[in-house]
Amino acid sequence: MDTKKLAIIATKGTLDWAYPPYILASTAAALGYEVQVFFTFYGLQLVRKDLSGLRVSPLGNPGMPMKMPFGPKWFRGINWNIPNAVQSIVPGYEMLATTLMKQTIKNTGVASIGELRDLCLEAEVKFIACQMTVELFGFEHSDFIDDMEFAGAAMFFDFAGESDICLYI
Amino acid sequence: MDTKKLAIIATKGTLDWAYPPYILASTAAALGYEVQVFFTFYGLQLVRKDLSGLRVSPLGNPGMPMKMPFGPKWFRGINWNIPNAVQSIVPGYEMLATTLMKQTIKNTGVASIGELRDLCLEAEVKFIACQMTVELFGFEHSDFIDDMEFAGAAMFFDFAGESDICLYI
Amino acid sequence: MDTKKLAIIATKGTLDWAYPPYILASTAAALGYEVQVFFTFYGLQLVRKDLSGLRVSPLGNPGMPMKMPFGPKWFRGINWNIPNAVQSIVPGYEMLATTLMKQTIKNTGVASIGELRDLCLEAEVKFIACQMTVELFGFEHSDFIDDMEFAGAAMFFDFAGESDICLYI
Repeated sequence: MDTKKLAIIATKGTLDWAYPPYILASTAAALGYEVQVFFTFYGLQLVRKDLSGLRVSPLGNPGMPMKMPFGPKWFRGINWNIPNAVQSIVPGYEMLATTLMKQTIKNTGVASIGELRDLCLEAEVKFIACQMTVELFGFEHSDFIDDMEFAGAAMFFDFAGESDICLYI
Repeated sequence: MDTKKLAIIATKGTLDWAYPPYILASTAAALGYEVQVFFTFYGLQLVRKDLSGLRVSPLGNPGMPMKMPFGPKWFRGINWNIPNAVQSIVPGYEMLATTLMKQTIKNTGVASIGELRDLCLEAEVKFIACQMTVELFGFEHSDFIDDMEFAGAAMFFDFAGESDICLYI
Repeated sequence: MDTKKLAIIATKGTLDWAYPPYILASTAAALGYEVQVFFTFYGLQLVRKDLSGLRVSPLGNPGMPMKMPFGPKWFRGINWNIPNAVQSIVPGYEMLATTLMKQTIKNTGVASIGELRDLCLEAEVKFIACQMTVELFGFEHSDFIDDMEFAGAAMFFDFAGESDICLYI
């Protein structure tokens, strides 16, 4: 039987949306899929050497539950409904949300983005960075991890056109 | 001929982005497709028993046309261009946008999210909640509707890998 | 060998997210794919006659690098980390971000949205607007470019169900 193929276009560059491409890629690789991820637009943030700048914003996303990752269960169960007014005026609010999320991820035993990315590389997931958006955003090749290719969308279609699953994330 | 298959990964949890997975799933089911939806991240909001918390935010989405759902045609035709400054400072602005959208949906005869969800269940669309994000966000199984399975991404690939269409929403 | 098929559902209506559907559609068409794009929700903004209203918002998107498109290289290399507080209170901030992005796109030689859209039409990419969301948002058929069909999701599945790649953008 032919090897199944998963193609992913990763376009988002925030801490929360960093998870789906790496979770799906590493899961598929573990199931025996051949996987390629094409990083473009804000998705380029996910393959930078330094991931410490990844942040999450609850602004404009009323679907995000804001919960405290510490304290007794009843306290953690509260869904903090903080208005945009407060979110956008209090300096560092985005940083607070990022810290809360990182703490929650740690408490529930979910791997960090760096760990998931390493898992993908170990499982031979192929990473491609979109050369056009690298130039558009003014990045240098040296900003990115070593295990990457730089190419255009046309090259990605070679693989995507033969894939069993192709996701735009 | 084999039955066509549609696999959906639903990741967004706002009132506007609640529509695409349910409209696509119910339409495909009506056309004879076998359909599975994997709810993960903020998408978990869409399968909660209580949908009243679904809201829409125009903040950070300059593509959203804000129109009044009442009054004469010329008045409803105006595209209200309300600056972020006002949106984020006036308390309850997100609630106003949500009310306007619900009223518009009602006026144009579009079904509510609850109705579309019921349509999907009647058409035997299979709903799966991502167990990892259920734990990450601190939800309980009892927060969700009864007709659900709880599983991981690996289980979803069984179906997605055989699907004709697989969408990440 | 059969012609490859690419189906796209375009749902976003901002200046940055206008690029992916048009770049992917035009690239695939150049590679010999048959391509259909279904414009729905905010994606309808991308097929309006007048594209001058397309804007970009850094609000709620901490993954967006804000760089100056002029001046010496060291100056352009700075990643301006402007807090949400300033972004949402200073009137016209979204307009500034839009201008910076348009200038950057021009400086790096990337085509404008109007040019990419024309490329798609010349390459016989088929454009379909979702009739339900056209009515929901109160648009008129005359708001859109001439080379369009108006139809529902069911019609789109005819093509998508036979496609090699189907992307929800």
